[in-house]
Amino acid sequence: MTVDADFAELKQRLKTIEDLRGAERALSWDQATYMPRSAAEARGRQLALLSSMAHERLADPAIGELLDSVTPWAQAQGADSDPGALVRVTRREHERATRVPPVFVHRLSEHTAKSYDVWQRARPADDFGAVRPLLETTVELSRELAAFYPGYEHPFDVLIDLAEDGMTVQTVRTLFSELRAGLVPLIEAIRARPEPSDRCLKGEFPESAQRDFGAMVIRSFGYDFARGRQDKTAHPFMIKLGRGDVRITTRYRADDLSDGLFSTLHEAGHALYEQGIDDALEGTPLYHGTTAGVHESQSRLWENLVGRSLPFWQRWYAPLKDAFPGALQGVDVDTFHRAINKVERSLIRTDADEVTYNLHVMLRFDLELAMLEGKLAVRDLPDAWRARIESDLGVTPPDDRDGVLQDVHWYGGIVGGAFQSYTLGNIMSAQFFAAARRDLGDLDAQIGAGELAPLRGWLTERIYRHGRKFTAPEIVERATGEPLSIAPYVAYLKTKYGALYGLS
Amino acid sequence: MTVDADFAELKQRLKTIEDLRGAERALSWDQATYMPRSAAEARGRQLALLSSMAHERLADPAIGELLDSVTPWAQAQGADSDPGALVRVTRREHERATRVPPVFVHRLSEHTAKSYDVWQRARPADDFGAVRPLLETTVELSRELAAFYPGYEHPFDVLIDLAEDGMTVQTVRTLFSELRAGLVPLIEAIRARPEPSDRCLKGEFPESAQRDFGAMVIRSFGYDFARGRQDKTAHPFMIKLGRGDVRITTRYRADDLSDGLFSTLHEAGHALYEQGIDDALEGTPLYHGTTAGVHESQSRLWENLVGRSLPFWQRWYAPLKDAFPGALQGVDVDTFHRAINKVERSLIRTDADEVTYNLHVMLRFDLELAMLEGKLAVRDLPDAWRARIESDLGVTPPDDRDGVLQDVHWYGGIVGGAFQSYTLGNIMSAQFFAAARRDLGDLDAQIGAGELAPLRGWLTERIYRHGRKFTAPEIVERATGEPLSIAPYVAYLKTKYGALYGLS
Repeated sequence: MTVDADFAELKQRLKTIEDLRGAERALSWDQATYMPRSAAEARGRQLALLSSMAHERLADPAIGELLDSVTPWAQAQGADSDPGALVRVTRREHERATRVPPVFVHRLSEHTAKSYDVWQRARPADDFGAVRPLLETTVELSRELAAFYPGYEHPFDVLIDLAEDGMTVQTVRTLFSELRAGLVPLIEAIRARPEPSDRCLKGEFPESAQRDFGAMVIRSFGYDFARGRQDKTAHPFMIKLGRGDVRITTRYRADDLSDGLFSTLHEAGHALYEQGIDDALEGTPLYHGTTAGVHESQSRLWENLVGRSLPFWQRWYAPLKDAFPGALQGVDVDTFHRAINKVERSLIRTDADEVTYNLHVMLRFDLELAMLEGKLAVRDLPDAWRARIESDLGVTPPDDRDGVLQDVHWYGGIVGGAFQSYTLGNIMSAQFFAAARRDLGDLDAQIGAGELAPLRGWLTERIYRHGRKFTAPEIVERATGEPLSIAPYVAYLKTKYGALYGLS
Repeated sequence: MTVDADFAELKQRLKTIEDLRGAERALSWDQATYMPRSAAEARGRQLALLSSMAHERLADPAIGELLDSVTPWAQAQGADSDPGALVRVTRREHERATRVPPVFVHRLSEHTAKSYDVWQRARPADDFGAVRPLLETTVELSRELAAFYPGYEHPFDVLIDLAEDGMTVQTVRTLFSELRAGLVPLIEAIRARPEPSDRCLKGEFPESAQRDFGAMVIRSFGYDFARGRQDKTAHPFMIKLGRGDVRITTRYRADDLSDGLFSTLHEAGHALYEQGIDDALEGTPLYHGTTAGVHESQSRLWENLVGRSLPFWQRWYAPLKDAFPGALQGVDVDTFHRAINKVERSLIRTDADEVTYNLHVMLRFDLELAMLEGKLAVRDLPDAWRARIESDLGVTPPDDRDGVLQDVHWYGGIVGGAFQSYTLGNIMSAQFFAAARRDLGDLDAQIGAGELAPLRGWLTERIYRHGRKFTAPEIVERATGEPLSIAPYVAYLKTKYGALYGLS
């Protein structure tokens, strides 16, 4: 066989895998939006089947042989070329897949579908007991998964590495402790100041007006509804079903504006990333955002650095008042801006302000590590959660619904490897935004004028279009000229909240 | 291997095939309801992939070997036993699958997805030219498909046989010509009588009120929304994604009550059949309605024999007036009943009354046979359609949108084998209903009192629960004690329309 023919066959095989994954994601989307609850068991089987079929094809020794054949040719085109990146990423995925037996993949997929279904009922019913045995199994399965990859320093490094190429338990711990050192004094300083009111966010906000306003805003971001759609779900997410099909979901509360609005902006940020990937990468593992952390940097950039900024609301507050004339009557834009940036020690991660948010993440990261290391039994998790959130955030959850049951992650996937990416995303979002500001001139004036095309263009050029061609550290370095650093993020928080709270 | 182990393995393999088909149907449902148009190409590939994977597994020689091993044991339990029926139906499906090469299945599936997508745009644009080259390919592919099955008397017998076990071009032609002989004089007699007004159906019917009323009615039929759901689409259909997940779709016109209402009742009829199948048959080819014709007998029974009857509206007309007080003001139930049963020579099959409906079917059956036999070129199809609908129904379509482009079948599947089942369904619906009336006592009084549980129970016991265990002729014989006959259908039409139109 020639290299050409082998490369064509490799791409054909990868396309089949991507199509199976696309079908799997279509079924997951339906499961979380419209599927009748009674279909959970059959859907779990269907998802497990597709997942194990994709896995089996990725682990096929033929993939390894084709990679062996085409790698010298691909590498000769440069590490930054599409073929060079393709063989590197595919090799990594293939080798990982070969470590995990298909029967395990099937078991894990079936288990997580079942667990997700039970959690969907257990959370509103405040019934941790219903998910406890399932979570115990999830912890065991997560350990088993980690054990398929020996040779890491910490046995759970691999779970982080799977989400964030090259990151380890130790690097995350170091980063988190540096960040904590910056956050805690800032939170203390803010607590010493008068508390702003966010009463204007708690009025009557009809769902259809929320939906229309959110759609108008994310259209201005550049989210393309013709290549996507928005639906309702319990726990908002973004999902790419395939080319031309990047969907977002949200939820609305009729008595609270923030939840629906900022989750819409957040998921739209994820979607802009996926919609911005070069379609030439379709049908390959490069056709996705590079890591969970970089993905989160984009959702947080659009949600927070754009969507909670004063210039942004100087553009959008008048239309918002038109949409909700009753609730926002007599409220000026500064008051509104203070309300949406109120720092508050609270129970729910996804509702948390930018400053305290990362403490929620660190809490989860430490607890999941303790479960994986066997230092914390699942039955003791609700108590451990309560103790930690009291000591870190000074609040006590009245129930498990808004405590240990609040996030889907441990109930719809493995334990370990997910939460750290939220904080990594926050860190990167500020670093990217600072670099964009440096390159684009008066970014605040552009945002204030509703001109978001330059920002989206900058992000597309430096980040989005490359898909998974580069790792997170490479993307940071290429886009900003600097290595990953918490400095821009801490500086951003200090400047923004210093001004909002009149800190010295 | 023991027979027990072989039977277990056979069932495991069949379950995988059913799960692949279920995933495929989930993707099809999404394609027809919520999918962004720009995803058509990727979705076409995903559907083709799942379809060919299911086909490949069904054609696997191992299925044949397992069948060889278990058949004597299964047959010893009787042809009516679950295992007896399972081996018979699986053998038939397996042998059919082995006839068709996987590459053809893949090509056909990709082609029909593309064709469906183009048709969705071409119909509103009245652009037959856009679908013409695709339809030419569809005709060729349909011929190729038929050619994989030699040994039939007429080369297209197999296309009918695939939908209606044991039926042939000749038997359908004979049945249709007998029926035509009964219908034409009835239509002539009706035309000689004064035309009733259906003005009351053309008013303002807000979509949400239509949806709520339809849901209330089909709940009374026994459609279980907890194991299904209803969404909007361009061309209504029912689809079972898996156990506990039988969905219906409909469309609404704000200025016309009939379209949304009767398509809801129709699809609910299909859904009652699927929801009524014994869950013990899950994961096997028996877990579906037996043939397209028997399926259609149920949609038509609930839509027409129940839903367009006078007793039914004696129960439901008051709530209907409550739902649409403006449009139905001053209209009494008799006037309404005449309106929904107005016989009219019209353009659209799905809007046609019970009497002229079958002429629409015969037209399509003859034209598709002519295309398959090479007697009619696709480019001449619009003219042939116009000529035939003028001679049969005395109407001239103003465009192709409401002519040759009106039905999805030729654009989203093969040509041949689909349309005859609509008329077979009509014939069977009357035969089943007459038998139920004989067994249940005063069926009209039950319907008039809104008591539909006895009728649904009778249908479930005799038809639904068996899934595909019996063929259409067997089901007719078992349920009614008589072989398939047009007599009850012609008698039903003569009695009902004789009374409505005052015929002697």
